[in-house]
Amino acid sequence: MTSSAKKPQARAAKPAKVMKKTTKPTAEKSETSKPAARQPAAKKTAAQKTPSAGKTVVKKTAAKATERAKLIESKIAFDGPLFRIYRDHIVEPGGKAAWRDVIRHNGSVVILAVDYGKGKGKDRKDPWIVIERQYRHAAGQYLWELPAGKLDAGEDPLHGAQRELAEETGYAAHHWSRLVYYYPSPGFLGEGMYIFLAEGLIPGDAHPEDDEQIDFRLVRLSELLERIEKGSIIDGKTLVGALLFARAVGVKPRKKHH
Amino acid sequence: MTSSAKKPQARAAKPAKVMKKTTKPTAEKSETSKPAARQPAAKKTAAQKTPSAGKTVVKKTAAKATERAKLIESKIAFDGPLFRIYRDHIVEPGGKAAWRDVIRHNGSVVILAVDYGKGKGKDRKDPWIVIERQYRHAAGQYLWELPAGKLDAGEDPLHGAQRELAEETGYAAHHWSRLVYYYPSPGFLGEGMYIFLAEGLIPGDAHPEDDEQIDFRLVRLSELLERIEKGSIIDGKTLVGALLFARAVGVKPRKKHH
Repeated sequence: MTSSAKKPQARAAKPAKVMKKTTKPTAEKSETSKPAARQPAAKKTAAQKTPSAGKTVVKKTAAKATERAKLIESKIAFDGPLFRIYRDHIVEPGGKAAWRDVIRHNGSVVILAVDYGKGKGKDRKDPWIVIERQYRHAAGQYLWELPAGKLDAGEDPLHGAQRELAEETGYAAHHWSRLVYYYPSPGFLGEGMYIFLAEGLIPGDAHPEDDEQIDFRLVRLSELLERIEKGSIIDGKTLVGALLFARAVGVKPRKKHH
Repeated sequence: MTSSAKKPQARAAKPAKVMKKTTKPTAEKSETSKPAARQPAAKKTAAQKTPSAGKTVVKKTAAKATERAKLIESKIAFDGPLFRIYRDHIVEPGGKAAWRDVIRHNGSVVILAVDYGKGKGKDRKDPWIVIERQYRHAAGQYLWELPAGKLDAGEDPLHGAQRELAEETGYAAHHWSRLVYYYPSPGFLGEGMYIFLAEGLIPGDAHPEDDEQIDFRLVRLSELLERIEKGSIIDGKTLVGALLFARAVGVKPRKKHH
């Protein structure tokens, strides 16, 4: 089970590389962006004294940003169809020993499926986006979300995204690219989410799994952003995907409203 | 245990109200924003035929957007210090019976702690933001994140946010407001996250819990957004908080880069 405990971490290797790439620039930046004089609140904190602030372990951890904890012991505490729970005894790179209950999951794929229609200009910045509604028992309500699903064990994420979009909406897409990989709740949930951008939709027949009852529709990006700002979109992957995409296509925010 | 199974859903009542508020406008909007002619891909799909598209259950579910599933049976399948797992037998509002393994958690608070410094103009749009780094075993790496923590049972979310910010960074803040409430992984995780905006930082002594080793620093919003666009911020709550806040303060996206 130790080996299967490691599998999700293997998946996490991709973002780990990204961390490595950006650890140095981060440190440099904080050196240059250090004018504590312009930040009175910070003056009195440790935060501005060194680029890596605050606690005693900082230098140690800063030197080991991409290192892994040592896994001393790992027991399966729960095993279900969707996820497992491991009770792991670890030693963190900083040297700290701890027990952690961690939920292991194959990871999820999320699809930001957009279509620019025939339009030019405005439509390039305000494409149609596929959203779905389904009942979420965990949230106790219906939620509007981007199409998404769980990866099969060892499945290629892009393949999983194409499979899920077809199953739930019938759509295929002309062009696929990865928008982001992230952890929705990294304190205890090992699930990583890949959000893919699927551009140029090709309709087809949906064939949702037996336990899915999915209602989907197309909305303008501008309408989705309006609903996000109203607080009526409360699914994390949908917030991340829509807000990242809005920046990527250069949608300007509306007038300040806070 | 049924009663404690319900507690997290009680917490979910707030966003449920929001859903109610916005369910009607959504339906109207999709009527008006229905020009399938400008959306060739959609023409052939069910999505454009009715505002609520696709599957047979749609009309039923659309009429019951804020209704709850009936809980027929609920067993605790795992009980840990941070979360519990319930194996629930439910009947969804659409009439569908299902078993769901759901993780129940008190909910989390996330703090977007910003300081505008003495500056005007640019600094209003590019304030300092507190970020932390800690080792996340679930992700197998160190992550930079907004300060966050778990709510105590029945704790007021604002109180929890003020407590966590003080524990982890020592900061208090002059002005607090709620940015968003959302579900990071609503398919099986009952955890809801409240992101609070804390403006005007007042330094103090941090006193992290025994099992926390936290490195924090202040970065400019512009630097945080740059790191998000590079893919080096991979914590969901940090993506949601920073991207929502950037829109709220009117930060324009950089040139299109995809």
